Amino acid sequence: MAERVRIDGLQYSNWSRAIFEEMRTAGLDAVHVTAAYWESARELMANIGAWHRRFEAHADLIMPIRTAADIDRAKASGRTGIILGLQNCSPIEDSIDLISVFKQLDVHIMQLSYNNQSLLCSGYLEDDDSGLSRFGREAIREMNRVGMVVDTSHTAERSTLEAIEYSSRPTVVSHANPQSARDTPRNKSERVMRALAESGGLMGFSCYPFHLPARSDTTLEAFTEMVARAVDVMGASHLAIGTDLCQDQPIEVLSWMRNGHWARVMDYGEGSADQPDWPAPLGWLRGTADFPNIEQGLEKRGFSSPEVDALIGGNWRRFLDGALQPQG
Amino acid sequence: MAERVRIDGLQYSNWSRAIFEEMRTAGLDAVHVTAAYWESARELMANIGAWHRRFEAHADLIMPIRTAADIDRAKASGRTGIILGLQNCSPIEDSIDLISVFKQLDVHIMQLSYNNQSLLCSGYLEDDDSGLSRFGREAIREMNRVGMVVDTSHTAERSTLEAIEYSSRPTVVSHANPQSARDTPRNKSERVMRALAESGGLMGFSCYPFHLPARSDTTLEAFTEMVARAVDVMGASHLAIGTDLCQDQPIEVLSWMRNGHWARVMDYGEGSADQPDWPAPLGWLRGTADFPNIEQGLEKRGFSSPEVDALIGGNWRRFLDGALQPQG
Repeated sequence: MAERVRIDGLQYSNWSRAIFEEMRTAGLDAVHVTAAYWESARELMANIGAWHRRFEAHADLIMPIRTAADIDRAKASGRTGIILGLQNCSPIEDSIDLISVFKQLDVHIMQLSYNNQSLLCSGYLEDDDSGLSRFGREAIREMNRVGMVVDTSHTAERSTLEAIEYSSRPTVVSHANPQSARDTPRNKSERVMRALAESGGLMGFSCYPFHLPARSDTTLEAFTEMVARAVDVMGASHLAIGTDLCQDQPIEVLSWMRNGHWARVMDYGEGSADQPDWPAPLGWLRGTADFPNIEQGLEKRGFSSPEVDALIGGNWRRFLDGALQPQG
Repeated sequence: MAERVRIDGLQYSNWSRAIFEEMRTAGLDAVHVTAAYWESARELMANIGAWHRRFEAHADLIMPIRTAADIDRAKASGRTGIILGLQNCSPIEDSIDLISVFKQLDVHIMQLSYNNQSLLCSGYLEDDDSGLSRFGREAIREMNRVGMVVDTSHTAERSTLEAIEYSSRPTVVSHANPQSARDTPRNKSERVMRALAESGGLMGFSCYPFHLPARSDTTLEAFTEMVARAVDVMGASHLAIGTDLCQDQPIEVLSWMRNGHWARVMDYGEGSADQPDWPAPLGWLRGTADFPNIEQGLEKRGFSSPEVDALIGGNWRRFLDGALQPQG
């Protein structure tokens, strides 16, 4: 039996050597990190440049991921592979050509929208959702061609279903939970979950308290119970982890994530004027170093060893093996 | 009686001294010119810079319009006032703050979308239309505040109706025709026309052949008949002219207008693979110099002198008097 591969399908932390050391403590072989929420092409290039400096300064702890095989190389060398991804299509601006350009810069996953309507489709906080736009269909076709994974985590329901249907390659919801666990439009309906599984896609469980049954008070047992119910719907081979950890981030970053540059009045997103700050962290996931608690929780819940293998990283590893290759 | 004011509510020509001389020949006191279709903020700034050079080089023929009173000054000095406007919201990118910045740069009219879905709403070539987005509502509120006119010429039906409803100030359709004259989604339904009139807005008749009953073969009589029928619906005080003249533009500009940067395959817009080029010009409007033919056609059709005054520029002049002022 191959050694267990551990992958966190979404983090956006205030990157530091301390966090990269925590990734090693946790035995994480790869982490999908967010390189943009609202950024323009130029701003994403600056963020990629900052990653170049991190790869250089912390070459003993992290390395960039270009192909799925790089995850194995990261594991073999005792490092954590960094998969760059976007939580919005804003960096491609209005240009279909920027998809292959950013793929060449190792941006391998892109959400079609963040919370708001994008040029490609709708976001989950919009009142209504008209599905994929003309540019949205073009963009998915191009992402399919170059091997950039379509992610619909923050995308509204109809847009998500249309993306799953329109994409010729499987798509992901890198970080969200079943609406049955917490009924918020940010989580996914059983209809989306089934469509995702049927198309060969993947959904990663989020540990962001606003997506969980009892928010910050959600126990590890409640989390693994949610996993078990989702496995009943999608099967263990289409589920994974995407913690959505935003470690060491100040409230200013949260405000920026929610407001970008589009609003003149404060938008509190999943929070409220009474509770504008980050939610309190889960007791069993205060930071990246606690990632093994999820694995232990799954084992304790009674998942088989191959099931835990799959959920904790094997599914992501297998998925990326196909997904990151350009089309022949 | 005040002297007749002549305003063309939309042109996008390959600007030259020859065209500015034609504007003078036609006695045009003001022209609303398109400064962007798909441009970014930076690209629009370059286009505005090019207008600065034109205002300097052709100061005997044209002058920039900042307030409606500037139109009177242009007229008094025998020049044509240039009103800068946008056929898309692309130049504000994702930033609410760029609305006041571009207003300060004398951009006074902005379409909420061109043909495609924008960050603000939907365009008329999309399959479906979910109305105003969250950013769309914010943008309209800000445009209302600073005195930038909301234009929905290329915007889809529901988005247009929601914009009329949401905007606290009257909006315009600078260049489109009634769908009753030619049934294309680019033209406007009677429902939109009535909502526009009831809200104090304005619709300018387009002379772009694809918007006209018999395309390039449309006679001046058929055009003025269309005007008469629209007056029955909206009243003469809510209608105007927006010729949509694209004089001396090469086919490359048409392709760019249709495709922007968003498509890898050619999109022919209102044309087709068989007929990718500009439509043949109308016999009675080969260029800006022919603008007086419209006025004469309206007189011949039997409109009263005050009605012709209103249609040929008086309505635009009165509308802009209120619309260009920042909110108190």
